[in-house]
Amino acid sequence: MLLIALDLLGIAVFAASGALAAVRARLDVFGVVVLGVTTALGGGIIRDLLLGIHPPSALRSWPYLLVPAATGLLVFWFHPQVARLRRAVLLADAVGLGLFVTSGTTTALTHHVPAYTACLIGVTTGIGGGALRDVLLREIPLVLRREIYAVAALAGAIVVALGQWLRLPAGPVALIGSALVVALRGLAMWRHWNAPVARGVES
Amino acid sequence: MLLIALDLLGIAVFAASGALAAVRARLDVFGVVVLGVTTALGGGIIRDLLLGIHPPSALRSWPYLLVPAATGLLVFWFHPQVARLRRAVLLADAVGLGLFVTSGTTTALTHHVPAYTACLIGVTTGIGGGALRDVLLREIPLVLRREIYAVAALAGAIVVALGQWLRLPAGPVALIGSALVVALRGLAMWRHWNAPVARGVES
Amino acid sequence: MLLIALDLLGIAVFAASGALAAVRARLDVFGVVVLGVTTALGGGIIRDLLLGIHPPSALRSWPYLLVPAATGLLVFWFHPQVARLRRAVLLADAVGLGLFVTSGTTTALTHHVPAYTACLIGVTTGIGGGALRDVLLREIPLVLRREIYAVAALAGAIVVALGQWLRLPAGPVALIGSALVVALRGLAMWRHWNAPVARGVES
Repeated sequence: MLLIALDLLGIAVFAASGALAAVRARLDVFGVVVLGVTTALGGGIIRDLLLGIHPPSALRSWPYLLVPAATGLLVFWFHPQVARLRRAVLLADAVGLGLFVTSGTTTALTHHVPAYTACLIGVTTGIGGGALRDVLLREIPLVLRREIYAVAALAGAIVVALGQWLRLPAGPVALIGSALVVALRGLAMWRHWNAPVARGVES
Repeated sequence: MLLIALDLLGIAVFAASGALAAVRARLDVFGVVVLGVTTALGGGIIRDLLLGIHPPSALRSWPYLLVPAATGLLVFWFHPQVARLRRAVLLADAVGLGLFVTSGTTTALTHHVPAYTACLIGVTTGIGGGALRDVLLREIPLVLRREIYAVAALAGAIVVALGQWLRLPAGPVALIGSALVVALRGLAMWRHWNAPVARGVES
Repeated sequence: MLLIALDLLGIAVFAASGALAAVRARLDVFGVVVLGVTTALGGGIIRDLLLGIHPPSALRSWPYLLVPAATGLLVFWFHPQVARLRRAVLLADAVGLGLFVTSGTTTALTHHVPAYTACLIGVTTGIGGGALRDVLLREIPLVLRREIYAVAALAGAIVVALGQWLRLPAGPVALIGSALVVALRGLAMWRHWNAPVARGVES
């Protein structure tokens, strides 16, 4: 139950991030819906391929298609002012990252993989959809360009793995993990934390 | 038999679309053959990963490599006039889309997944190879840019699923499904059907 | 043992190629490490997905993450002069290609797939990580642009498959196969072998 709710919420938020990015790239309504669905389902499908779940759960029930498709349409009609699009993509991406990292790590743990492997699969689940979105729009993925993107994802995954190790209740732990990811990404965006670039490379 | 014939025909046509796009991008003869093979086999390999078929059938027999490699070489030597290349890529892509959507849906149904899942896997099979081709050449995939690309694929998949539900013979149904996809794509290209772009986004 | 050693060596070299390319694209330190890890593990993860190994071995033990992450950091701090970066990426890519093609082919053979399939999986293992690196940095992959890239990979895979068929010891055969790939790529780079481009396409 919790897993499905987290998954669907993450799907809606990632669908919004994909649809907003597609609106920004001036794709038509079909392109907006297709990119929303792809961004939303990409991470979960990669997770299921890594865990050997065939066919991936995202392809097995209606809500997994309806939620992102409807989100894409809503974004297309009611998207916020143009000036705010870039910020909206980043915010939706941060929330989706948090939800997908924790649901991905939790799913992996229920399939009895070691905690270390579960964390890496959770990070991949969180990063996958957004990376797919950026590659399809010919942008360098956020995970390569943004401050502490992968580190924030890893922190969320470790919280979930620790929670399970300490036998804490899975629901609150997943929420705390997600919130931590969003907080870290939000801080990095707000403070414009910049990581160093290698010396000696000319612009 | 029918599945293999449909598959090989789709592979040849998609190989031609990949090779033509590579010629247009001025790749050398090896690049043309590699992109033709990748475009041709990509969709089927994604389909087999989603269905849990290991190793993918495209990697298990000679014709699946020889047909697209030979097609790539033929396209390299006898490619049509430059002015027609863009149109030729689009046409080969439409035929390949139709054949792969119906063969993908049929393969999924023979693996006893529900009709809904089979349609989604069929659409992914059809879209996958062309999306890979466009991403490798740094273009935004057709499925995001073109009128009713995904809708045409979905229509073809639904025809196959309906045909199986009504216990109609698989062969003619697959041909009708493929023809429907090609007809929808052809109409959209011919009439320049344009879907709306979101309001308020400046060019 | 041999497989793991070859794998880790290939991972370090491919991580260096990814990190060098990321430094060249002016990514920050996190981007450099993430791209190094992705380039290094991408090929092996694709190989395990094709063979149905769940979860992929690259996600199951510490060294598979530590080696490429540490390599990425080392490259970030001690990367060679800017002018030599392009050449360094190409060289690291050639060595990684050789090691991954032979370890991929050997792994596939130990999973009892036919020699033909093992060669194709080996080639995909070798090509996969570098293609991922180039796509994430929005470049057309080396395998499509460079002289005899895919042919060199195929030659290395065939050496390994032949060696197993002749019951030769796996270790030396893998080294010879890797050396052959590096030699072919090196020759092509040194001599600027150019394959023909299709006639009639204007620049």
